[in-house]
Amino acid sequence: MTYRAPLPDIMAVLRHAAGCDAAIREGLYGDLAMDDIAAILGEAGTFAAEVIAPLNRLGDTDGARLVDRQVVTTPGWRDAYRAWAAGGWNGLVAPGEWGGQGLPMLVQVACLELWNSGSMAFAIGPTLTAAGIEALDIHGTPDLRRLYLPKLVSGAWMGTMNLTEPQAGTDLSALKTRAERAGDGTYRVTGTKIFITYGDHDLTDNIVHMVLARLPDAPPGNRGISLFLVPKFIVNPDGSLGDRNDVVCQSLEHKLGIHGSPTCVMTFGDKGGATAYLVGEENRGLACMFTMMNNARLAVGVQGVGVAERAFQQALGYARERRQGRRPDTPAGQSAAIIAFPDVRRMLMTMKALTQAARAICYLTASALDRARLAPDADARRRAHETASLLTPIAKAFSTDIGFEVASLGVQVHGGMGYIEETGAAQHLRDARIAMIYEGTNGIQAIDLVTRKIGQSEGAAVHAQIAAIRRTATRLLAANRPGLGLTAARLRGAAESLDRATSYLLAALQAGRTDDALAGATSYLRLFALVQGLASLADIALADGDDAPERASHEALARFFAEHMTIGADGLAADVMGGAGVLGESAAVLFA
Amino acid sequence: MTYRAPLPDIMAVLRHAAGCDAAIREGLYGDLAMDDIAAILGEAGTFAAEVIAPLNRLGDTDGARLVDRQVVTTPGWRDAYRAWAAGGWNGLVAPGEWGGQGLPMLVQVACLELWNSGSMAFAIGPTLTAAGIEALDIHGTPDLRRLYLPKLVSGAWMGTMNLTEPQAGTDLSALKTRAERAGDGTYRVTGTKIFITYGDHDLTDNIVHMVLARLPDAPPGNRGISLFLVPKFIVNPDGSLGDRNDVVCQSLEHKLGIHGSPTCVMTFGDKGGATAYLVGEENRGLACMFTMMNNARLAVGVQGVGVAERAFQQALGYARERRQGRRPDTPAGQSAAIIAFPDVRRMLMTMKALTQAARAICYLTASALDRARLAPDADARRRAHETASLLTPIAKAFSTDIGFEVASLGVQVHGGMGYIEETGAAQHLRDARIAMIYEGTNGIQAIDLVTRKIGQSEGAAVHAQIAAIRRTATRLLAANRPGLGLTAARLRGAAESLDRATSYLLAALQAGRTDDALAGATSYLRLFALVQGLASLADIALADGDDAPERASHEALARFFAEHMTIGADGLAADVMGGAGVLGESAAVLFA
Repeated sequence: MTYRAPLPDIMAVLRHAAGCDAAIREGLYGDLAMDDIAAILGEAGTFAAEVIAPLNRLGDTDGARLVDRQVVTTPGWRDAYRAWAAGGWNGLVAPGEWGGQGLPMLVQVACLELWNSGSMAFAIGPTLTAAGIEALDIHGTPDLRRLYLPKLVSGAWMGTMNLTEPQAGTDLSALKTRAERAGDGTYRVTGTKIFITYGDHDLTDNIVHMVLARLPDAPPGNRGISLFLVPKFIVNPDGSLGDRNDVVCQSLEHKLGIHGSPTCVMTFGDKGGATAYLVGEENRGLACMFTMMNNARLAVGVQGVGVAERAFQQALGYARERRQGRRPDTPAGQSAAIIAFPDVRRMLMTMKALTQAARAICYLTASALDRARLAPDADARRRAHETASLLTPIAKAFSTDIGFEVASLGVQVHGGMGYIEETGAAQHLRDARIAMIYEGTNGIQAIDLVTRKIGQSEGAAVHAQIAAIRRTATRLLAANRPGLGLTAARLRGAAESLDRATSYLLAALQAGRTDDALAGATSYLRLFALVQGLASLADIALADGDDAPERASHEALARFFAEHMTIGADGLAADVMGGAGVLGESAAVLFA
Repeated sequence: MTYRAPLPDIMAVLRHAAGCDAAIREGLYGDLAMDDIAAILGEAGTFAAEVIAPLNRLGDTDGARLVDRQVVTTPGWRDAYRAWAAGGWNGLVAPGEWGGQGLPMLVQVACLELWNSGSMAFAIGPTLTAAGIEALDIHGTPDLRRLYLPKLVSGAWMGTMNLTEPQAGTDLSALKTRAERAGDGTYRVTGTKIFITYGDHDLTDNIVHMVLARLPDAPPGNRGISLFLVPKFIVNPDGSLGDRNDVVCQSLEHKLGIHGSPTCVMTFGDKGGATAYLVGEENRGLACMFTMMNNARLAVGVQGVGVAERAFQQALGYARERRQGRRPDTPAGQSAAIIAFPDVRRMLMTMKALTQAARAICYLTASALDRARLAPDADARRRAHETASLLTPIAKAFSTDIGFEVASLGVQVHGGMGYIEETGAAQHLRDARIAMIYEGTNGIQAIDLVTRKIGQSEGAAVHAQIAAIRRTATRLLAANRPGLGLTAARLRGAAESLDRATSYLLAALQAGRTDDALAGATSYLRLFALVQGLASLADIALADGDDAPERASHEALARFFAEHMTIGADGLAADVMGGAGVLGESAAVLFA
């Protein structure tokens, strides 16, 4: 059950797949040096391994409870959270103006992976605070920012996102929570929100809810939704805490996993209305919320990476220790460690390869977000923004899909012991499952990719990304390294498949055949991720000099991914392109 | 949460994929007619839906408990079990001599699916009784058979299989449980067994343990293992129950799922030795146990089908009811049922297609078992036996893999509600996960397929199976039905891929490159299952006449499977053939 921060893998991805070396060279990150980043990640890794990781199992067995309408978190979590906040980890990317450290998103994402490997249920809380900070910093009034941002950035208070209602999940336009003008510039919010992560808890003295609601005179649908800040305790003008606000946690959900993370039904306005402050303009709340959601989507993708890494490490440790059966070279009277068996190796290699590929995609997305903010040239910023937009749904959906797949392989490596809860392998599986659902189901991510992202600038962003992948394939061919086996050929072929599927989808959308495009969306996202993942693993291997100690393992991983993981690329492209039409007809017949 | 027996799907598979029509025509099943089978399955379906299915959730929330070294099952289970046994369902295939009905295995497997859709945790108990009946009927002494078989066949007593020990899971040769000769023809067994399903319970008055143990003078390894019958209560010569035997349930495992099924640590001989009776010859126990295990493997495969069907029905029901968002044809002011969205349809189609394909493979295996016993011609019996042997690991591993995949898709269709335990979708996921592990992990099934099964009669059995698949492809081409789209071409191509991969593996094994073959075993099994699954779905569609009401849906399902599920066949074949060598080297570098 021990966990060690996989710093060599993380640094390789940062530098050579996510372009951190290049960004530093270009001066994008100011005077931040690679050594600084390594030092930060080293410290974060130690905290994750020594403080957070040991609490993960207790979060599962002794999860959040509701006592007298107040959520009590797992024993030890409050101390761990406070130590974490005191370490300055909550404000890594926040602006210096509010006490943050203004570090790149790339560093933040790497740290986020570490917290999530420590414990998904623990790490999801601050992720929502970060989303709140961003929305408030961009859209909040000066007063709101002054009163709330320093506390949110330090981690003294935590934030939440209150979107979902029973009838309004994926479709936020259906939400019913109401906000009335109080006449003094504040508002009164009334309604019920469900699935509110860390909606209540005892980690901090105050909780800052970001709430979507409708004004009485708001137009119907998406254009009538406003965003409000609703504190658990009213904050006095001097920053001190005042009265308890009219918002409570009504009940907690009994979930498959992440038991340490309280999932609340929140009731606003049982006593007449919760005092609320408008964030941004009236009826423009959805746009503000989307700011929060995009980064939250990347953060959830990183949860997939984090839990996959944890599951992999645990399975690897077990496979090295567990002895069972014999291999041709096993001495008489002994058993072999199960890691020696080809089928177990296949599982471990698959786990490692998928994890590293997903890590690369998430970090690449973060690096594009940095570039979108920091590049000196406006056109470069725009292009980077499009790249980040393109990659975000892939990072979210692929990483969480493989988080679950890797956790399931982890259970399998453990055999019968994997099914026993005390082993801990099953917890990773249960925990990982939520990430495929929340912050927009993975089906929604695929739809976002196909209907909104590949069409950006008439396909320029997606074609630029495919061109970058092809450049890697060309470099692979030129390098001609025996250790990379068929990697060059496989990447070139897979990039062709991706290109073909992309052109098909763009043409289908152009022709108004939206359903045909949507029917293949999930397979297209998987295809894109596999091709990008392979290109990133190849980028890492190609960056190694002849004498680099990690070269052999980087080559082995890229080669395994090429020869075993992306080998279905052509089939996926055919799935996207060939069968879309039949889906509607067939379903109509089958589910008539 | 309601469940209805999918009788039309089951009958279509029975008749046209598993050859029940042909078997009846040939007189293999005596005077049993298709109407009889339909009547039996109708009754079984009613029992499963009305009595078992409603108990499934309670089995999860209020699972088996250990009270004073005695296992207490979920409230209501005892009554349900007794009603089930009273209905004669336990003795379907058992010989008439012992009170059984001597029905075909094919009928038994269809019923087994229904019980497992009702509740996996409930249905696994009688599965072990059936294995015990078979071993005892073949290998037991006349006295043992007379005393035990009538009670086991009626279901008055249940059976268990006691194989695993902490150091002996996959590798039974390492087991240490000891049996001493008592001098009176009986034995005394001492030792600890783990993971014993229904090792203790309160459903029946006695429990009959089949236990593997070593005699003091036994040779080491597999050739020194004997099989013993150890009753919970000693059975007097007149059949009445005597003293409590020296075997107890020491503790219960806390598992990811199937909480209703007690998984016991069993201690034999705490008070000097449990009275035991030899089954078969001394030191030949493993052969007897393998008799039990092969059929148990098929039964576990059927668990995958059962849970997949249940998860599918629940997801379909939800997708029809849940309204969210809009489609182009949604009336103003309303929401669309989510089944109207292409991505949801894709998930539901995938669930249905995989379930029906796995069902076909399991039933085909059962039908081969029937033919191996009942065919008039010895050579036909031998060939059918080889077919059943070939298909058994595929039936077990593929069906349980897709059981889990389908249950996971079921969670996804439910969105956020899927992660809430009260919904019930997550229980299917947790329950389904065990079937990939027990009765030989799915990795072990793949190894069995590659190292033992495809080599039968120098490849004749596997080539005969591929030839049958190709005949279906030829019939598809000749039928030239528009509703089947690209099915003929896809099946022909996929059969080529399977043939190529098979030849590669046979050659690798021949050349002593066992590890190369083993590295691709899991992908090979998946490939085989997808190709066989498609052939079976096509067989069903081809059997429909022009006016058959189900023709359109059978065609749609086969077509969907061809155009979306088997589309990766070529990639899987390349995975099997191309990358085997790299696995060993790469793993050595990566996990050095």
